[in-house]
Amino acid sequence: MDVDGVLTDGQIIYGNNGQELKAFNVQDGMGITLAHRAGLYTAIVTGRTSEAVSRRAEELRITVCRQGVTSKREGLESVLQQLGVSPEETVFIGDDLNDLPAMALVDLPVAVANAVVEVKQAAIFCTQAPGGRGAVREVIERILKEQGLWENLVKEVAAGARTRQ
Amino acid sequence: MDVDGVLTDGQIIYGNNGQELKAFNVQDGMGITLAHRAGLYTAIVTGRTSEAVSRRAEELRITVCRQGVTSKREGLESVLQQLGVSPEETVFIGDDLNDLPAMALVDLPVAVANAVVEVKQAAIFCTQAPGGRGAVREVIERILKEQGLWENLVKEVAAGARTRQ
Amino acid sequence: MDVDGVLTDGQIIYGNNGQELKAFNVQDGMGITLAHRAGLYTAIVTGRTSEAVSRRAEELRITVCRQGVTSKREGLESVLQQLGVSPEETVFIGDDLNDLPAMALVDLPVAVANAVVEVKQAAIFCTQAPGGRGAVREVIERILKEQGLWENLVKEVAAGARTRQ
Amino acid sequence: MDVDGVLTDGQIIYGNNGQELKAFNVQDGMGITLAHRAGLYTAIVTGRTSEAVSRRAEELRITVCRQGVTSKREGLESVLQQLGVSPEETVFIGDDLNDLPAMALVDLPVAVANAVVEVKQAAIFCTQAPGGRGAVREVIERILKEQGLWENLVKEVAAGARTRQ
Repeated sequence: MDVDGVLTDGQIIYGNNGQELKAFNVQDGMGITLAHRAGLYTAIVTGRTSEAVSRRAEELRITVCRQGVTSKREGLESVLQQLGVSPEETVFIGDDLNDLPAMALVDLPVAVANAVVEVKQAAIFCTQAPGGRGAVREVIERILKEQGLWENLVKEVAAGARTRQ
Repeated sequence: MDVDGVLTDGQIIYGNNGQELKAFNVQDGMGITLAHRAGLYTAIVTGRTSEAVSRRAEELRITVCRQGVTSKREGLESVLQQLGVSPEETVFIGDDLNDLPAMALVDLPVAVANAVVEVKQAAIFCTQAPGGRGAVREVIERILKEQGLWENLVKEVAAGARTRQ
Repeated sequence: MDVDGVLTDGQIIYGNNGQELKAFNVQDGMGITLAHRAGLYTAIVTGRTSEAVSRRAEELRITVCRQGVTSKREGLESVLQQLGVSPEETVFIGDDLNDLPAMALVDLPVAVANAVVEVKQAAIFCTQAPGGRGAVREVIERILKEQGLWENLVKEVAAGARTRQ
Repeated sequence: MDVDGVLTDGQIIYGNNGQELKAFNVQDGMGITLAHRAGLYTAIVTGRTSEAVSRRAEELRITVCRQGVTSKREGLESVLQQLGVSPEETVFIGDDLNDLPAMALVDLPVAVANAVVEVKQAAIFCTQAPGGRGAVREVIERILKEQGLWENLVKEVAAGARTRQ
C-alpha cells in the first residue's frame, strides 16, 4: 500500500525545525494486526520518507516498509521478490497517479474513496472509507471475509487475543 | 472507556523524535467534570501508552488511568476491584474489536458512532457523536439525565460552579 | 469570546514534553482585524492557559486576553471594566455550560453551531459555522453589517488596506 | 496562489516554543508537479511567514515563494515581473478579502470552495474542493485539460515518470 492519502487522509503536516507529522488511523492498525494473524503479508511502498512512517510500520509489524521509492512499480516488484509473492496474489491500495504503475502490476488494484478519478478507473474496486479513515481496514476485512477467515478472527479477539493497533 | 477512537477520533499522530500527539475534545472534558461532580467514577483502559493521555487524565482528574493494558477485560476487572464497583453498575465505551472483552464484562456496553459493526452489535446503544467529537459527553449526559441529576448540574455551572474541561 | 470550541473546533491537542497545540482559523483572524478596523474591542476569556492562545491573541492584536479564568462572569466583568464597556453593548460567544454565566451578563449572547443545547437556548442567535471554522468571523460580519460598516471595510481591503489574519 | 485556506484548510496551528504547523495536501503536491512538467510556473504569495511553507515550497520546487507580503497585489506584480509573465496569462487562487487586490490584477481569478462570498463573486470560477483538500489540484487539472496537456501527463506518470508530491 501507499501511505499519504491511503494510510493517512493526505495531509502533509510540517512544523518548525524539520518537524513532520502524520496522522494514522487506529482501526487501520487493528486491521493490519488481523491481516498478520491470518498469515497475510503487508507492505508500504511510498515515495516520501519520514520517521512517522517508520515508527508506525515498526509498531504494527508491517512486513516490509519501503520509503523514498522513486518508482513504485520497481519498489513493489522488489517487495514481492523479497517475500516470494506473485502479483496474482497481491493487492495494491493507492490514491494518486504515481500509484498507477504499481496498480498495473498486480491483479487486485484498489482505490481509496479519496483517490483521483484515473486511479478509481484503474481499480477493481473503491473503498467506501477515505484514506486515514478506515480505507485499509475495509480492504483487509473484505479480503479476510472472502477467504472465510474473518469470523474466527473476530471471535479470537473477542475472547481476548492480544492485538496491536 | 477506551481512548483511541473514543476520547479521540482515532488518529494516531506521529512526528519526529518520538513525538506523539492526541486530540481530545473540550466538551468531553466538561462532561467528565460533571460526572465527577455527580459522584461517578471515570476510568481509562487503553492498550497504548502516551504522555498525552497521562496529561489529559490528570488534568480532568479521571479516577483511574490504565495504559499499556494487554487485556482490556483484565484491565477493567482490576479497575473495578480497585474502585469497589460491580460490572452491573459500569458503562464501558469502545470502538473496536479489542474492546469486546471489556464490553462483555459490563451490563452497559456502549459503542461510539464510529465503532466497527461488531462493536455496535455488542452495545446496548450507540452514540450519535463520533469519538473525539463529543461521544463521551453524550454518554455521560445520558447517564446523568436517567439518574435525574443533569438539570441541577447545569444550574450549578450556569450559576458559576468551577469546572474543568 | 471563549477559545476552545469557539476560536477552535474544540480539539485539545497534547504531545510529549508538555506540547499543546491549538488550531485557529485564518478567516476568523481576518474578521477580528476588520472588527478592530471598525473600532470594536475584542477579548478572550478562557478557563485554560496555553502559549498558543497568547501568540494568536498577540498576533491579531486582540484587545484583552484573559486566560486561566476560574469564573468567566468575573473574568468578563473585569474585561468590561478595563475597557469601559457596558454589558448592553457586548457580545459573548460561547459553546459550553461554563460560558453560561458570561452569556447571562451581556445583552448579546451568541452560540456557535457546535454549542451544547443549553448554550444555544441561552443565545440570541447561533452561528451557521462551527467554532474554528469561521464562527467568530460570522458573528463579526453580522455585527459590522448591522452597523452598516461592512461594505466600506471590504472596499478598503479590496483596495489594498493592510490586514492581519 | 495564497497559502492559508488555499494550500491548507485555513487552520493556523500553534504550539509551545514558537511551534507553528501547517497541513498541506499530497494530491495538491502531485498537481503542482504536473504543472511544472507541463512548463507552467507556480508561485506562492502570502502575508504570513513560516518554515512550513518554505519547506513545502522547496520540496515541490514551487517557482517563486513570497512570504510576509504586506500587499498581495504588489507581491504578485513583483512575481510576474521576475518571471516575465503577463497578468493575462496568470491564475490567482484566493479565499479571503485580502486576496481581492491580487485577484483583480489577473485575468483568471479563482476562488476555493471555502472562500468568502466576496471572493467567490470576484472569481471566474470556484473550485468544488476546499483549500487543503485538493482545490489547487483541481485548478491545475482544469488548466492542463483546457490546454490539452492532461492526458499525456497522466500517461507519463502511469508509465513511471518520476514525480514529487
